Order: sequence, then structure tokens, then C-alpha cells
Amino acid sequence: MLGGYLGKILRINLTTGELKDTFFDEDVLRKYLGGSGLGARILYDETSPETDPLGPDNLLIFLTGPIEGTKMPNAGRYEVITRSPLTGSYGEANSGGKWGVRLKKAGYDGIIFKGISPKPVYLYINEGKPELLDASELWGKDTFKVDDLLREKHGKKACTCSIGPGGEKLSRLSCIMNDGNDGRTAGRCGVGAVMGSKRLKAICVDGNISTPVVKEAELNESVKKWAPIIMKNMEGLREGGTSCAVPFIEEIGDIPIKNWMGGSFDVEKLATPTMNATILSGRYSCANCSIRCGRIVTIKDGPYKCDETAGPEYETLALFGPNCMVDNLEAIAHANELCNRYGLDTIGTANAVSFAMEAYERGILSEEQLGCKARFGSEEDMIQIVHKIGKREDFGDVLADGTKIASEKLGGIALEFAVQQRGMEFPAHDPRYADSIGLQYATSPRGACHLSANCHGEEYGNAYSGYGFYDHGVVALENHSTEYKPEMNTELEHIMCLCDSMTCCKFLIGPMGDETGETITNWLSYITGWDLTKEELIKTGERIFNLKRMYLVRDGQSRKDDKLPQRMRKRRMTGGSADNIPDLDGMLDKYYELRGWDEFGIPTKEKLEELDLLGTL
Amino acid sequence: MLGGYLGKILRINLTTGELKDTFFDEDVLRKYLGGSGLGARILYDETSPETDPLGPDNLLIFLTGPIEGTKMPNAGRYEVITRSPLTGSYGEANSGGKWGVRLKKAGYDGIIFKGISPKPVYLYINEGKPELLDASELWGKDTFKVDDLLREKHGKKACTCSIGPGGEKLSRLSCIMNDGNDGRTAGRCGVGAVMGSKRLKAICVDGNISTPVVKEAELNESVKKWAPIIMKNMEGLREGGTSCAVPFIEEIGDIPIKNWMGGSFDVEKLATPTMNATILSGRYSCANCSIRCGRIVTIKDGPYKCDETAGPEYETLALFGPNCMVDNLEAIAHANELCNRYGLDTIGTANAVSFAMEAYERGILSEEQLGCKARFGSEEDMIQIVHKIGKREDFGDVLADGTKIASEKLGGIALEFAVQQRGMEFPAHDPRYADSIGLQYATSPRGACHLSANCHGEEYGNAYSGYGFYDHGVVALENHSTEYKPEMNTELEHIMCLCDSMTCCKFLIGPMGDETGETITNWLSYITGWDLTKEELIKTGERIFNLKRMYLVRDGQSRKDDKLPQRMRKRRMTGGSADNIPDLDGMLDKYYELRGWDEFGIPTKEKLEELDLLGTL
Repeated sequence: MLGGYLGKILRINLTTGELKDTFFDEDVLRKYLGGSGLGARILYDETSPETDPLGPDNLLIFLTGPIEGTKMPNAGRYEVITRSPLTGSYGEANSGGKWGVRLKKAGYDGIIFKGISPKPVYLYINEGKPELLDASELWGKDTFKVDDLLREKHGKKACTCSIGPGGEKLSRLSCIMNDGNDGRTAGRCGVGAVMGSKRLKAICVDGNISTPVVKEAELNESVKKWAPIIMKNMEGLREGGTSCAVPFIEEIGDIPIKNWMGGSFDVEKLATPTMNATILSGRYSCANCSIRCGRIVTIKDGPYKCDETAGPEYETLALFGPNCMVDNLEAIAHANELCNRYGLDTIGTANAVSFAMEAYERGILSEEQLGCKARFGSEEDMIQIVHKIGKREDFGDVLADGTKIASEKLGGIALEFAVQQRGMEFPAHDPRYADSIGLQYATSPRGACHLSANCHGEEYGNAYSGYGFYDHGVVALENHSTEYKPEMNTELEHIMCLCDSMTCCKFLIGPMGDETGETITNWLSYITGWDLTKEELIKTGERIFNLKRMYLVRDGQSRKDDKLPQRMRKRRMTGGSADNIPDLDGMLDKYYELRGWDEFGIPTKEKLEELDLLGTL
Repeated sequence: MLGGYLGKILRINLTTGELKDTFFDEDVLRKYLGGSGLGARILYDETSPETDPLGPDNLLIFLTGPIEGTKMPNAGRYEVITRSPLTGSYGEANSGGKWGVRLKKAGYDGIIFKGISPKPVYLYINEGKPELLDASELWGKDTFKVDDLLREKHGKKACTCSIGPGGEKLSRLSCIMNDGNDGRTAGRCGVGAVMGSKRLKAICVDGNISTPVVKEAELNESVKKWAPIIMKNMEGLREGGTSCAVPFIEEIGDIPIKNWMGGSFDVEKLATPTMNATILSGRYSCANCSIRCGRIVTIKDGPYKCDETAGPEYETLALFGPNCMVDNLEAIAHANELCNRYGLDTIGTANAVSFAMEAYERGILSEEQLGCKARFGSEEDMIQIVHKIGKREDFGDVLADGTKIASEKLGGIALEFAVQQRGMEFPAHDPRYADSIGLQYATSPRGACHLSANCHGEEYGNAYSGYGFYDHGVVALENHSTEYKPEMNTELEHIMCLCDSMTCCKFLIGPMGDETGETITNWLSYITGWDLTKEELIKTGERIFNLKRMYLVRDGQSRKDDKLPQRMRKRRMTGGSADNIPDLDGMLDKYYELRGWDEFGIPTKEKLEELDLLGTL
């Protein structure tokens, strides 16, 4: 018996306007769960190396997972899976907020878009009834405005996700935003451009359909026990948000500075005590979450004045801050707000700004080309460049497609300081600080991703436990060492694939300590009615990771593509990671061996057979 | 007063048939000497990043140097400088034999070709009188035959250089051969294709014009003292040729095996005692040389029967031997002879064969595509593939343009095992054996070149002295270490630039021990009448190396292009270099610093000014 989890997917052909409900077989759902697992399966089966990411044959897949809409903590996320215009291959992005749960309550586990609409449309689903509606009035508007207008029309209980001008203009840095000025975002891989290419402006969902849970009493009881523990163990995150540890991260040399050149930066003006004492006006939590790591900020006056709006996360703060040499917290909050409104990934955009600053200061990008100056440390220049990227004006038109394309346009030494992998810009964790981060960026299917192994927390604490999914006890870690990093990343990648497929927040991995693995397995069993074991789940995570790898392999990728950009092979010279260059090749040898991949990084037949993938590729 | 060294250059426009004598000013000659130094200067000034290597605007420059035609030992080489169709940027190749000296005796220090002849021609120079003559009878013939025909027509004293079918068919692996079946070759960078693109089949030179020497008595006296010492100190090379140390080179893990995968190989059947006892029928010396490192071989019967002809050098033996897993010496000698006749670089061609073998055995190159099998260890397959490359038949048509282009054609994992740098195939020394070799291949202007620093001899002997050019005494070297490698390579590159510019054989560096630097400086002073010091010469070498670097920089190259192919980042697993991966980035940091180059590997203004290059770029 299925616990209500039918894999009910709304399939929409935007070219013809046809809408159709479809379902997945239980064995497929059990093998791939939902979210990025099921999405990778669909994308593998229904796109090919010839599929143009911005053409009609690409799919734009929105998926929740089996736990969405239940009482399981931190179960409020959704995944977007598509062929990425930024990386040219497998792409995924996920987001929190309330939209994912509301989609489930509207009656669907997911939506798959194909084709291109003849005119701008948005999708409205109200309790199982989907309609494609005209979006000509919304086209050109920013994401906050779109949320206002749609909820004015369809009621305040409705949730929206949408693209801004960034996605409309097919910027490869564009994202999909949800929940208006709550500022939640499926940020990476240029998913906004895919939505823009389909002329799909927004998805507005409403409903109150509940998610059946097979063993509801057991779930409720267990959640009741764990909820306060999770809340307590994540107090620091609630207090300081994701940027709670900024001074520590600067000291150890993990934070990017001056377009990843390194050095040191006085982060005091950006740190939690400053934010809490100045612009912080509230704390935000996604659906089903008691951690409340989100920031709500208000700037009362001055050039960056704004009402209550989403504040910058750690990645945004670090990349618009030290990496652009800007120490004005209000300016950073404003840049964040601009990105949210334009519908631009702050990680990609901030990297594009710091890249432009370096190009400008080295004299290979002129003020005339860019339409403004681009000085490190200038908040005015930073804000202007964000506008230029959002509007695709002047050289902002090139930067809007990311640093790889911009560096190829400028040529010469610009190719040396575009800090990206597989075309995707680096998040704000430096591989020179911890070798596992380098291995993660090199091997993550979507490029430079800090959530693929999510290993920076382990490196901060110098310890890795396996979280009860793996029972090897606590392993001590040295940051500047390759020791145990391939082993750890391999395991964490399986666990993270599970999070992205169930789909739950990654902050749920950890606060339950060594009981995490068992507890999550139980919860998923209670919900679905499947008699799951940790071992089956781990294998599921491994299956999903290997499937994504095979998507890359089919596109011609192999070991040669598991790499780090030139700047990561240059020492930072000062600070906590001054002298470390990760031995990527040494780690890859070991990592491939552990994974059962051949010397070129291609899964062997034996491994694919072990994971029940062989006949499916 | 100039000692006869006027930089007298014959300039030929092949499009119009115009011939013109030109001269260089003394200050230019003193700054760049001749050979690759003067050639790099001309190429920098008269080509650009837009110049198509196979188009009419490319130059094909043949240059000797100030010492050519004098009694200075080992002074019988010539350089070919051109924009390379193989590397797409700076290209050079040099050769010994007798042709270079004969060109000088014909009255010229060099020849520069530009344009494209409407029909096949050859150049004949007889004692200062140059003529372009019809080559329609020669077109299509192999290089040995061309030599026979031209010397039949113009007299046995005449010397020829020519291209074979390889150059005519614009193979990027094609070379320029000289002196018929003496088998001397300007092998690398696809210089044969440039000659073919210009429809220039051959250059036949004759004459007896002597090279004036300003202080002839002093030169004669010094040469008389040193000639027997050089001869004595190079006995091993005379006895065994360039492959005299093959068993040692296999043991230490320097020799390539199975398309650079590594492992071990029984080289007994290829080693000096075997060659001397079987096919060796004579020893060959270039003009003005008493070392006689060249091999003459005869195969009396069997499928590889041949009369006296040039035998395989070390590079050829290693790359057709262990790297193709072939242990039949006669088959290797035959493959060498075929390359010589087709006018193909044996280093590039043998790498293309081993690349094809790996692609075939991994199932990504079919027998049908290639037109034959390509099994490691099969001498028949090896010979067939050489023919296919020479004739550009089947997949041989692709292999004829080198492993980089072939790997791009095959795609996928083929990109992982094309062992090249800047597009040029690796010579038979493995960077995993000695870190200096890796640094050399990464930074040599023409790509994977073993003669740019010529450092393998130092690594074999575990010691580097500076050869009296640098007076720091003997430094001990560890092969599997980066220690002192940037320092050594920097110095050696200056010395080697001097050799290639004077132009003399690199075997002259060494046998005079610590007096090498002083002696060579004196000889060059006696010849030219310039009052040279070692310091001036070293600066000249550095100027030339930096000028070549600036040619690459102008083409958009920088640190990102100073790299090693994927296979060099994989351990050999067995043998003398089983576990070593050179730390290229660490060496590059130090190397750039020593060179006065910035973090991107670009010479600083200060360095260019110091070298009197700043205003000339």
C-alpha cells in the first residue's frame, strides 16, 4: 500500500497547451524516491546530449518528494531538474520556503514542462485543478511584484514561484524565486533561463489536500521526541543565520576574498553581532521548520532603504562582501534584494561582479565596455554591475551568462581568473581551505556545488561521524590533508542525494547525532509504508549519484572534466589556507576506486549492475 | 668589424616568384644571434595571431647561425621557424646533417619563404645564385628519392632538404628531411605541412664559399685542444647512439610504455648490444662532428629488408617500441624508414600509432574506421597504421594531424589519453620520472619538447653543474622532487636557446665540463669579432626565451596553457616512477618568480625592459 505517495505528476506541453496527470510505478518511486533522484531519472530518459537547454525539447521538472506535506521536520523543499544552460549538462537547483508544500497540497508531487508557449503564461493549480493562464501583464515584472499580483488575484494563501527579468532575458545566472520577498530561491544552473525560454512566468499553487501517512501515530510520536532536540541543537543557526560563523570562516581561510585571490579581510562589519544590531528585523523559517535560519532585514533610510525583506545568506554575504572587497552590510543586503527581484542567483552574480572587478583593475575590461567602473571595494560599482547584469546592458549582457562565457569573450588572462567548474561559479567555500571541498567541486554533477557533499561543516569541526547512516564512528579530519576525504565525500554524497530526493533540508543531517540515519529511515518508512532499512536507503543514494554521473558520461564527460579552475592551483599566500593546494589527482584516484568507477571516472558495468542501473541506461 | 656574419638572408615570395637578398644590422644579430633567436624575432615581427599557419601569410624561415661553416665543433645544424599548424602558435624545429653547412657555403645564412607558389617548385642555390625551379617531376615522391634525383641533376656535392607525401598532404605530423637516407630531420611542429602549403618541395644547395673568422688562429688552436676531449667524453654515445642507455631508462621509469600507461617492458631485444650485433652497419656524423651518434643500419632479408639507411634514434625506438609494445627491432627500423620517406616526425607519428592502439583496444576506434587492426604489440598493425598516416587513408587521415585533433574527433575518453602539450606529442621522456621534465614540457614554447631545457641527462646523473655558464658548482638532484628544478630549467633554457641560435648541437653542452661556458663564449668571440662575455650570452639566451614566450602571450596563452595532459596526472603504478606525480603548480610558482613573470606567467614590464625587449613588442 502506498502512503499517498503516487508520484502524481502534472505534465504540460507548453507548445500545445496540453495538460495531463501521470503516475509512477511504486518500484520506480522506491528506487529514486522523488526530487532530484526521480528528476534525474526522468531527465536521463527524456533528454539527450543533443537537447538544447533553451530549446523546446528540454524539460523543466519541478519535484517534491514522499515526505512533502507531512509532519516530518524540515520537509518543505522542492527540486528543479533540467538540462542546464550554464553547465551544458545535468542541472538541478532546490529551494525551501512554503511553495513546495503548497504544491503538494494543491494535489501534485511535481510538474514537468516541455515545449515553448507561444505567449507568456503562468500555471495556476487550485486543489488539483491546473490551468495555464495569460501572463502578458506579468511579463517584465520583478519576482516580488509577481508574487504580490498573483496573490492579490488568487488569494493570500496561494504560493508562487516565478522568474524575473533575468530569466526572461535567458541569463544563465538566472534562478527561480518563490514566496515573494521571503526570497527563497532555486538558485543554480540557470534554471530561470529554462523557464524563460519556455515563456513560463510563474506557477501559483493553492489547496489543502493532505498527504496521507501510512503510520501516522508512529511518525507523530517520533517527531514529537526529536523536534525540540533539533531546535536546541540548531540554536546557533537560529541566532546568527547561515552567516553565523563568518569571523571564524575568514580566519581559517575558507571565505573568498578579492575574486578568490586570498589575503585577509576585516569582516567585523558584516558579522552576526553587527547584523543583529543594525538591519535584522526578524527570523524566517521554511515550512515545517523550527530552526528559522532565514534573515529578515529592514533598512530604514539611506540609499539602500528597504522594508522587511529577505536578508543575505552566508554565500551572498561572503561573495558580495569580501570577494568584492565590500564591507557595507546595507549595500550587500541591497545587492541581494536586487538579485532576488531580477531573479538572479546571488552566488553566480556576485562571482560575475568580482570577476568584472578583477578584469577592470587589470585593464582588460574598460569603463567604456562595462558602462561603469568596477573597482574592488566600491559598493556603488557593485550595485551598478548587478543592474547591468539584470538588464543585460553593456558588458553586463556578457556577464549575465556567467564567468566562463565572459572569460572566453575577454580571452587571455581573463581565462585564468574565472572561478568556476563545469561552467558554474564557486560558492563561498575555498578548496584551498579544505581538500574535501576541492574534491566535491570537481566531482559534483552540477559543477561547483557546496551541497553535493555538504562537507564544510565536517571540516570546520575536524570530525566526521557518518551520522548513523554509516557506523564507523567518528573520524578526525585535518583540513589541509587528503586523508579520509574521498571516503567521507562518497558517503556524504549518498546522504545528500537522499535529502534532495525525499526532499528535506540538509540541516536535518546532524542535529540528531548518531541516530540521524535510523530516525530518517523510520520516518520515511512510516510515511510510505515501505519497510526500509538504512542499507537500502544508502544504496538508493548511491544509485541516484551514479545516475547523475551517467548523465554527464553520456554527454562525453569523464576524469578530464573533474577539475578545479586555475586560481585554485595558486596559493592564497596569507591567512588560514595560505599554503594548501589540494592534491585533486590523488583524491580522484582513491575516490574512483571507492566508487567502483574506472580510471577515467566512468562507472563500471559491475557497479551499474549492483545498483540496478545497468539495463536502464 | 663583422666576421663574415652579415645575417645574409634570401627572401622569397613564392606567390610572385620574387627573390631578394637582405641583411640584418649588427645590433640585431648580436641580440638574437641567428637560428631560433633571430627566427623568433622575424616571426614575431612579421606574423600575427591572425596568421593561418597553412596560409600565404605564414613565413617558413630556415636559419643557420654565426658559427655555421666554421671549424667550431658540432656547428652543423639549422633551424626552421614558422607559425606551427600543430601547436597553432610559435613553432620551431632543427636538424643536423650536412645541409645547414652547405647552405652557408652556398652563400646564405638563411632563407625566408612567404606566399604560396602557383605550382610545385624547388629552390636551387649554387654559390650565391638562387633559382626557383619546377618541381612537378618531384611532387609525390618520397624524400630519399627526391634527394637522389636532385643530386643526380645538380651534382653529388649538393645537399637537399625536402618534404615527402606527408608534407604535401599537409599532415600536421610532417617534417622536413635533409640529406636523403642519412635521415636527418627538422621533425617537430608540422613544419613539413607549412612547406607543403607553400608548394615548395625541396631546397638544394651547393657551393664552397667559406665563412670568414675574425680570429682564425685563436679558434683553431682552441678547437685543436678541445676536439679530442669532446670525442673521448662522448664515447658512449658513439658506441651506442642516442639509445645507448635504454635498459637504464626503462628501469628508472623514464621510457614510455603502452601509450604512456606505464608498467614494464623487456627492452633487451632493442638495446645497444642487440642492435650492434644485428642491424648496425655503420655510424654517422653530422658536419663538423666527431661524436658520430647517428646509426646506419642494414637489414639483409625478411619483410623489413633494407640497404644502408638511417637507424632509429632513442625517441623513435622508445615510441615505436615499448610505447606500442613492439619488441621487433627490424620492424621499428622499418617504421623509422617509412616515416623518413613519407616525411613524418617519428615522435608524433609513433604517438599517433600508440594512441590509435589504445583507442582500438578500448573499443572506441573500430577496425572498419581505421582500415586495419591496432593491437598493442603487433608490428604488422603498427606498420600498417604508419602507411595510413602517410597516405591519409581511413582514420589515418585524422591521425595525420596529431593526437590532439584525433582525440577531439573521437571525443569522450579519447581526450583522456592523447599525450600532448600545446598540441605537440610527447617525446620519450616521462614527467613522472623526473619533475624537471614535466616543468619543461609545460613551459616549452613549442609544447612537449625534450630539448627546451634538455634536462633528462641531469636527472639521469642526479647532478647539475651550470656547465660553467653559471658558476654555482654542482647541485645534487632527486628525480622525484621539485627541489631546484625551476632553477635548473631556467638556466638550461637559456643555454639551449644559445645552442639553437648559434646554431650548434646540444651534445656540445657537457663534454667540456665546467669550461663549457667560457670556451663557447670564446669561440663565438673569435668567429664574430664581438668581445663577448658569458654574462652577455646568458642574457641573450634569456632574451630569446622571453621573446618566444611573448609570441605565445600575444596569442592569448598564459599559465592556463602551461600544463600537462591528463595521463601525466595518473600514477604509472609499477617501475621506477611508479608513484610520482610532479607538483607542476608548485614548480610554476617558483619558475615564474625566478623568471620575473607575473602570476599568470606573463613577463613583467621590468623583465622585458631588462632584456631590451620592451620597445620591440
